[in-house]
Amino acid sequence: MSALVAPQDLSRWMQCRVQHLEQVLDQLLPPADSTPTRLHEAMRYAVLGGGKRVRACMVYAAGQTCSRAGKIDTAQKTALDHAAAAVELIHAYSLVHDDLPCMDDDALRRGRPTVHVAYDEATAMLAGDALQPLAFQLLSAMPVAPALVVQAIRRLALAVGSHGMVGGQAIDCDSVGLALSAEQLQQMHRLKTGALLEASVLLGGIVVGASSSTRDKLQTYAKAIGLAFQVVDDILDTTSDTATLGKTAGKDAADNKPTYPSILGMDASKALLQQLSSQAHEALYPLGGQAGWLAGMADYIVSRDR
Amino acid sequence: MSALVAPQDLSRWMQCRVQHLEQVLDQLLPPADSTPTRLHEAMRYAVLGGGKRVRACMVYAAGQTCSRAGKIDTAQKTALDHAAAAVELIHAYSLVHDDLPCMDDDALRRGRPTVHVAYDEATAMLAGDALQPLAFQLLSAMPVAPALVVQAIRRLALAVGSHGMVGGQAIDCDSVGLALSAEQLQQMHRLKTGALLEASVLLGGIVVGASSSTRDKLQTYAKAIGLAFQVVDDILDTTSDTATLGKTAGKDAADNKPTYPSILGMDASKALLQQLSSQAHEALYPLGGQAGWLAGMADYIVSRDR
Repeated sequence: MSALVAPQDLSRWMQCRVQHLEQVLDQLLPPADSTPTRLHEAMRYAVLGGGKRVRACMVYAAGQTCSRAGKIDTAQKTALDHAAAAVELIHAYSLVHDDLPCMDDDALRRGRPTVHVAYDEATAMLAGDALQPLAFQLLSAMPVAPALVVQAIRRLALAVGSHGMVGGQAIDCDSVGLALSAEQLQQMHRLKTGALLEASVLLGGIVVGASSSTRDKLQTYAKAIGLAFQVVDDILDTTSDTATLGKTAGKDAADNKPTYPSILGMDASKALLQQLSSQAHEALYPLGGQAGWLAGMADYIVSRDR
Repeated sequence: MSALVAPQDLSRWMQCRVQHLEQVLDQLLPPADSTPTRLHEAMRYAVLGGGKRVRACMVYAAGQTCSRAGKIDTAQKTALDHAAAAVELIHAYSLVHDDLPCMDDDALRRGRPTVHVAYDEATAMLAGDALQPLAFQLLSAMPVAPALVVQAIRRLALAVGSHGMVGGQAIDCDSVGLALSAEQLQQMHRLKTGALLEASVLLGGIVVGASSSTRDKLQTYAKAIGLAFQVVDDILDTTSDTATLGKTAGKDAADNKPTYPSILGMDASKALLQQLSSQAHEALYPLGGQAGWLAGMADYIVSRDR
């Protein structure tokens, strides 16, 4: 069965990973004083503004889980850094576009003005448009076997397109004010939030050469925690205040958007969360002690409070 | 020296390539009746609405130029189709975002309502956001050596990011109403239009395994025709009417955007065009008769009237 990781150990590990990733992102993003400066400033503002870096941590945790005897060589380390940076660039771009007036029209993100407020709409759109290919560029520069690089790129491209993240966004837009069933809501979230989280887990495995049977287990784990992530988000949107969240609380209800608590009720939403957590842990059992950080990440996602 | 191709032969070849590409795009784009339908409809509307397909033809012409003894095998043929489709998807996405109200706010494109007019702003933005990863997905599925696939992806990613196409857009936005020098204008266009055209030529060569010395020649050719393309665009914007162009004529001047005729004057702009054309042809000489279509494409670009 998967090793138990104490919450304080996971917390320390995540903190260490996040600090490292901030340095990696700082180096891989274009310098703020390089032309076009306003665009590059906006890209850095969008990416380096903090955040929990859950997706990057998933890449690292999956890499550790699937490494041979827990050993990760220098090339794999660099490749994991690139993959972790890539998923965070994609996540950042999706937030920038999501916050635009033609979408959610949000002025606050991570406790700061959103990119189109801090800069302007055109710059925000272009910053998102430039972050996306930078993610693929970073993957293409991973120093591992080209066949693995291609698999990673394919996985990410599928996850963020019209059958993945952007498709979920589109369904979300189209469903405002509509009565969605629990199944429809689940499908929307699997694409909108789940697809990139799943890809993050898989990327970590692909980079270190995980076997196809191990990838299957990662996939089962990732599906469960991807959905759990969104259920928690919905619960927090209902129960938290804006200062705690760092973004506008209660916005989904105000926008008449369906959420798990609004469809299933709060108790059933919390029961679903426990069920998804069990599924995630069960998928990791066959992977043994090396899956410790992934197991810890599942607990972190289920119990996070912002 | 490069073989001469009669204009009517080039025209027939392009027509044939374009017809083939439309079928390829039709098959590779998500079906209009697949969920999310509105998004998929908008993506198809954006891509399948015609256009000259210059970038796709560049991919095919460069593939022919760099093939061994003019022979292209089935796998290379499929790979060239994917590469040609990919650059057209990127081009289409850039037009959709460029036409949005926060950018150029254009209502007409290829003689039809722009995507945000035909659908809505959110759908137009998301359609662009989904076309971009589809391009990388198609490249990742090219049935050639993974190392070549990675090189092609890296080349495209660099061409469309903040140091390429999107960077050029950002400089364009920032330069409205400013007095640009001819050098600054050239730098802006090299990124905005040139980078993707250059990548299209290079992708064709990479896919069929062109040597690094051949790639250098393609690069020189591509740089010249990329710039020539924009000079012609500026001349046409000044001298044509809206019906001929299929988009709003005289818009650059109305928007107070710098153009080659406005900075260099019309005569000097036409002289520059001839100079660029010569540079392009000279780069092709060492590649011999197989470079016929590329040579023809250079002539086409310099003499096109819309």
